[in-house]
Amino acid sequence: MAIDLARSAERIERDIETLAGSDYTLSDEAIRRYAYTQEYRNTLDYFTDELRAIGFEVSEDPVGTLVARNRPRGEQVFAVGSHCDSNRNGGKYDGTMGVVTALEVCRLSAELDLDLPLQLISFLEEEGSGFGQMLLGSRIMLQRVTEDELRESFRAIDDGRSFWEHAEEAGYEPARWRECIGVLDDLRGWIEMHIEQARVLQDTGNRIGIVTAIAGYVHADVVVHGRGDHAGATPMDFRLDPTLPMAETIVELERLAREAGKGTVGTVGEIEVDPGIINAIASRIRFSLDVRGPDDGAHRSVARDIAAFAEEAARRRGMEAEFSQRQTLPATPLDGRILAALEEAAKATGEPYMTMHSGAAHDTMCVAERVPSAMVFVPCKDGVSHHPAEDADPADAALAAQIILNAIQALL
Amino acid sequence: MAIDLARSAERIERDIETLAGSDYTLSDEAIRRYAYTQEYRNTLDYFTDELRAIGFEVSEDPVGTLVARNRPRGEQVFAVGSHCDSNRNGGKYDGTMGVVTALEVCRLSAELDLDLPLQLISFLEEEGSGFGQMLLGSRIMLQRVTEDELRESFRAIDDGRSFWEHAEEAGYEPARWRECIGVLDDLRGWIEMHIEQARVLQDTGNRIGIVTAIAGYVHADVVVHGRGDHAGATPMDFRLDPTLPMAETIVELERLAREAGKGTVGTVGEIEVDPGIINAIASRIRFSLDVRGPDDGAHRSVARDIAAFAEEAARRRGMEAEFSQRQTLPATPLDGRILAALEEAAKATGEPYMTMHSGAAHDTMCVAERVPSAMVFVPCKDGVSHHPAEDADPADAALAAQIILNAIQALL
Repeated sequence: MAIDLARSAERIERDIETLAGSDYTLSDEAIRRYAYTQEYRNTLDYFTDELRAIGFEVSEDPVGTLVARNRPRGEQVFAVGSHCDSNRNGGKYDGTMGVVTALEVCRLSAELDLDLPLQLISFLEEEGSGFGQMLLGSRIMLQRVTEDELRESFRAIDDGRSFWEHAEEAGYEPARWRECIGVLDDLRGWIEMHIEQARVLQDTGNRIGIVTAIAGYVHADVVVHGRGDHAGATPMDFRLDPTLPMAETIVELERLAREAGKGTVGTVGEIEVDPGIINAIASRIRFSLDVRGPDDGAHRSVARDIAAFAEEAARRRGMEAEFSQRQTLPATPLDGRILAALEEAAKATGEPYMTMHSGAAHDTMCVAERVPSAMVFVPCKDGVSHHPAEDADPADAALAAQIILNAIQALL
Repeated sequence: MAIDLARSAERIERDIETLAGSDYTLSDEAIRRYAYTQEYRNTLDYFTDELRAIGFEVSEDPVGTLVARNRPRGEQVFAVGSHCDSNRNGGKYDGTMGVVTALEVCRLSAELDLDLPLQLISFLEEEGSGFGQMLLGSRIMLQRVTEDELRESFRAIDDGRSFWEHAEEAGYEPARWRECIGVLDDLRGWIEMHIEQARVLQDTGNRIGIVTAIAGYVHADVVVHGRGDHAGATPMDFRLDPTLPMAETIVELERLAREAGKGTVGTVGEIEVDPGIINAIASRIRFSLDVRGPDDGAHRSVARDIAAFAEEAARRRGMEAEFSQRQTLPATPLDGRILAALEEAAKATGEPYMTMHSGAAHDTMCVAERVPSAMVFVPCKDGVSHHPAEDADPADAALAAQIILNAIQALL
């Protein structure tokens, strides 16, 4: 079914621009909104009003994830949504465009008299701007947190007070957090639309990405212990310069990631040099490793190999390297049946699309544990995200809305 | 002539330990003294008293460099000395042990009735701890500064007031700074003793280093402009990751420095990654280059080659690298006749010594422009310098005093 794409794009743009207004962001220079602020409350209220206007029942789970349904609890529905919080120096599109597009799917279903059984979810704190915890709403829903974390460890970036205290103050009932998982009851599927946050769609000229998997990752640090000598006075043969094993490791990481293929990527994003002055050989260097991919075997073997390589590169030069893992998460394969429906719907539009994986994490990683899930990406300009310069085209979101609508219709 | 090395070592140790006392340092945890502080004044007073006690006339040049002579102005003398200021987190030996050893040479000359014509110099602000300007006293002496710098640009790290103002407040006459060069009149030669600040003497089992040249250097920065994409979402083929040309350049710098030989060294001591977070490909990376050597041809060609290499490494990956020089200084060859006399005197002691170059800068770089100059190094433990843990053996300094005394006697 072809929708009036221009009208949908217009509505999506209006929603996006409204939610970029001063009532909805704590900053004049960026989108900055996170849980339990007035600006975040206003954003939920906006969606609530729009959803009620098309006949949805709107509620919030015990910590504040927004849930809207056009069927009573107990009836099977298909869920759409994303998150509407932002990172602290964010743009208008990350997350919000996904919720807005989900809202547009709900509107179209009503307007075109399809009356599909739908549920919209807008997750709390995907970006972690409030409490430094990414995917917090969906992790709470999937019981991937502990009560102690919610009561004690997770603390507001702004004032250091606990998540629990803030949630209660905002009128929620964190003590009932285990009930959040009920939001996923009776779901036939879940589709999240999101901006790509990279440049693959733009650079390949595709308007739609159908996401077949979300990459798993290994986050780690390597510390190389050298010897901090005088850069001028220490001959080359007397040095234990830790920048060298690091340099060799950076080059090798690229080689290993390319060799592994299957979408595996490897990045050194943080480098910390001690003491970090021009005329001193570093005594110690720390660098981070971010190794990801939709294929766990491939990306984990790169992580293992690069750890071994760094240790050997240091040892060969008389130094020691320590590899320590920060965090690891397996890849999330998405649901083949939903993907097939999305692909068919995409094909039918005649517009260029591709299948791809997501290198970034999304709430869908949690949802997919219980509900058949998929994601749709739209391009964002130059891959810029998490920045006020973030830009995406409402026309692409309208196209995504049409594809999602048709896929759901085909699936039900 | 053999001196009583044990007695000299004892006196040197006493001087060093005295000057490590609380009257002579602004910090409890380190030696911290610099121009125009009471602690620095006390240090000059200590040397003044000791030198007057053996019949030296002591004065200070118009900015505060200490000058002591046992002959009237106009008569030829041989000069010895170093500096007695420290870096802000310094040890007891850097600089001060050189002045103390020069004092011991003066004492020995008096005590042994040699009555050599001597001048002791203790340079102001070698470390730059007061005004952020290294070798400041000797640069002023050699007119390597401008009046505008002294009046305006050079400002105290502590309070931002000008060098000029501080010098006047301390009772000096900075307006007469051009006269400082007179300190070098009538000098037949200059020998500075200093701790090595590296581990070559220790690791080769030598007690004395006779310094044939002070390395010249090129200090520069390389900035590689990449593209700051999402580390997870950006496939390997879509990246402009500036850490890679940097890594290749670090590896190549080591190769080039080794290949150039002749004491050439190359170091990357500073690395600054933008934005420097684990899950972001850097948009930009800056790293410093410190390339030195006693052979200008060799070290400058390494600096040129590494700049070209970095630019090419970036270009090959579709990025740009900018090389910008911060500062460059030619190598300072030292005086062959003085070096020969020092080597002969060293040989005569039967103790292990070596000829070597200095990779670090010293006031001698300035003095050598007008006066035949040489340096003598003694080991410092593990090469540690500019740190409270700095350690050196007064017995080595006593040995250096004997060698310097004998060399001067042979030269006069």
